[in-house]
Amino acid sequence: MTTRTDVTHFNCTLADGIARISLNRPERKNPLTFDSYAELRDWFRDLHYAEDVHVVVFEGNGGNFCSGGDVHDIIGPLTKMSMKELMAFTRMTGDLVKAMMNCGKPVIAAVEGVCAGAGAIIAMASDIRIAATDAKVAFLFNRVGLAGCDMGACAILPRIVGQGRAAELLYFGRSLGAEEGHAWGFFNRVVEQDKLAETALDMAQKLADGPNFANMMTKTMLNQEWSMSIEQAIEAEAQAQAICMQTQDFHRAYHAFVAKERPVFEGN
Amino acid sequence: MTTRTDVTHFNCTLADGIARISLNRPERKNPLTFDSYAELRDWFRDLHYAEDVHVVVFEGNGGNFCSGGDVHDIIGPLTKMSMKELMAFTRMTGDLVKAMMNCGKPVIAAVEGVCAGAGAIIAMASDIRIAATDAKVAFLFNRVGLAGCDMGACAILPRIVGQGRAAELLYFGRSLGAEEGHAWGFFNRVVEQDKLAETALDMAQKLADGPNFANMMTKTMLNQEWSMSIEQAIEAEAQAQAICMQTQDFHRAYHAFVAKERPVFEGN
Amino acid sequence: MTTRTDVTHFNCTLADGIARISLNRPERKNPLTFDSYAELRDWFRDLHYAEDVHVVVFEGNGGNFCSGGDVHDIIGPLTKMSMKELMAFTRMTGDLVKAMMNCGKPVIAAVEGVCAGAGAIIAMASDIRIAATDAKVAFLFNRVGLAGCDMGACAILPRIVGQGRAAELLYFGRSLGAEEGHAWGFFNRVVEQDKLAETALDMAQKLADGPNFANMMTKTMLNQEWSMSIEQAIEAEAQAQAICMQTQDFHRAYHAFVAKERPVFEGN
Repeated sequence: MTTRTDVTHFNCTLADGIARISLNRPERKNPLTFDSYAELRDWFRDLHYAEDVHVVVFEGNGGNFCSGGDVHDIIGPLTKMSMKELMAFTRMTGDLVKAMMNCGKPVIAAVEGVCAGAGAIIAMASDIRIAATDAKVAFLFNRVGLAGCDMGACAILPRIVGQGRAAELLYFGRSLGAEEGHAWGFFNRVVEQDKLAETALDMAQKLADGPNFANMMTKTMLNQEWSMSIEQAIEAEAQAQAICMQTQDFHRAYHAFVAKERPVFEGN
Repeated sequence: MTTRTDVTHFNCTLADGIARISLNRPERKNPLTFDSYAELRDWFRDLHYAEDVHVVVFEGNGGNFCSGGDVHDIIGPLTKMSMKELMAFTRMTGDLVKAMMNCGKPVIAAVEGVCAGAGAIIAMASDIRIAATDAKVAFLFNRVGLAGCDMGACAILPRIVGQGRAAELLYFGRSLGAEEGHAWGFFNRVVEQDKLAETALDMAQKLADGPNFANMMTKTMLNQEWSMSIEQAIEAEAQAQAICMQTQDFHRAYHAFVAKERPVFEGN
Repeated sequence: MTTRTDVTHFNCTLADGIARISLNRPERKNPLTFDSYAELRDWFRDLHYAEDVHVVVFEGNGGNFCSGGDVHDIIGPLTKMSMKELMAFTRMTGDLVKAMMNCGKPVIAAVEGVCAGAGAIIAMASDIRIAATDAKVAFLFNRVGLAGCDMGACAILPRIVGQGRAAELLYFGRSLGAEEGHAWGFFNRVVEQDKLAETALDMAQKLADGPNFANMMTKTMLNQEWSMSIEQAIEAEAQAQAICMQTQDFHRAYHAFVAKERPVFEGN
């Protein structure tokens, strides 16, 4: 299955096994709409089956990552919805996070400028986060009268930055800058804004050149083992790693090592 | 239901939706007794139903936060108890942590001076922790011949500071200072001792002015989702947030935004 | 039951309740073999019943900690195995981690030089980690075509350093140095290489002089409560701590305090 790049509500390009996506309303700092939520969800769901994409880089556009749910296109209509309609919405947004986590390919968020609300969630739901020095991440749900428990934040954010820091971000909705986010382990790296795309693509290329079947398994297990006991997790990994030991990539690495060469992985 | 301030074994005052509490034996660095444990537990349990308190600030007294279980009033008697009596005690102390976590209002610990044993647990069980520069936190159970697994510490502390640091604190009972605790994410902020109360009350006021129903939901879900899988957590949040979207506070925030005003939340 | 020191595939000495172990192939940076895996697993399993060992110090040898599974003795043969044989291997390696976690005594890893692959896992599965300044930890599974989910890494590493940092280490297999590892909470302390053994033994002696029954309970509960809810964990600790309150060590600590003496613990 090949990956669609003819998408409407976000940008998508494909090269060397790397998909670069970004929201496409830079004049408003890239807010999400009902349509872009749904299209992103479907795109990440399809990605699970894609053979042509090994890594996703989720980038900003026009200097900002994403300003969250559009006030006029989303917040306004939500104030008029029935509970049934609200549940359909919150499940759709949660399904985007699930789709990102279940897509089987590492997702790198390259965050610059505004990264707020659902934008912060998209960064959080990525596997690796790189910040431009001007990145400002705000889980600002409580500022719009909502709870911090949005799209998995109360479960996922504490596992990235710890329970105390997550509580502060979610109760106050305050901004987390690049340096502080790096010190907390939210960001894996901070770079100047003009190096952001390059850094993200370098890291993506390293991943794309790696053993993609094994990377998919790493992603699966990192997400799968959260609620397992240690004993269960160790048995789950014994099975998962035994599967990987039957891939050709494992054999390629061994033979390359013996021949003192660099392995060339093929993802099978 | 209104909140009792006529308590005997600790201090309690109420203003602007903020309850300030502290232990009341400063001459001995505020040790806990059987009576203060029980009264605190009952007070936090009642708080769950209170409409007049939105945030709790747990403060020190006389320069110290709390020195833990009183050696003479608690430790001595415990050495003479039957297993049935011991279980009644350890369940009562655990019930204090449960009551703090289930009270529905954010708890801010303003820690100064000695914060040891059960005092460290009370800080740990709070949502936000602010330290005066002289704060010293010690989970010193192993120094009195006990295990680190006291009142939830082996589950909660690793989620705040990570498993390796939690193990060190619990195995060695060593003191954690303000700066180190800040670097580790145990403390959200460090201030000079003479700014401690002011800083805590500022943060409390920000929370109290926020959407209190939504804050209650944030607290509920932060504690509720620990042992859920990612998929379960995301569904749980879809439901919790849909509930919050039917509050007036969410509508107030939207209308304030459209009118370019600051929202005034009412907690419903 | 007394602890065996007449082991073949690693070094083991015993003194003052402290077992010092290290791998014994320093000329190749101490790779693991099928035999050393199995012998370590059995030794840690037996340790659960030992009365003569209270703490384990896992050290390097010849300037390196452990280079992981031997390429010639392990990786090569694995490429030729059936699934049944592979599962037997991955379960054996996982059983080493389980045995370390269930041995009932704190394990201190004293890491220097190369600490790679299964060596990184052994450090991760220890309770306390001390680094020499030259320590380099690499979860390099993806470099040999495998997944990061090895011997529990996808479950355990995120709880030590957070999900984002763990993801980076596991996806890229990159080296983690002593200082960065300290800042992340992977290492509890960093010292000059010539102070490593001394520091580890000092810490080990402090633990060995402590209440060993209670330390065993701390270790048990730190590992046991991962997948419990807060409510379950608090009840589990109420029971575990009540048990510890019936030990003589708890009484010894109380009487020493009253007599203004230093308690002498006996581990019962």
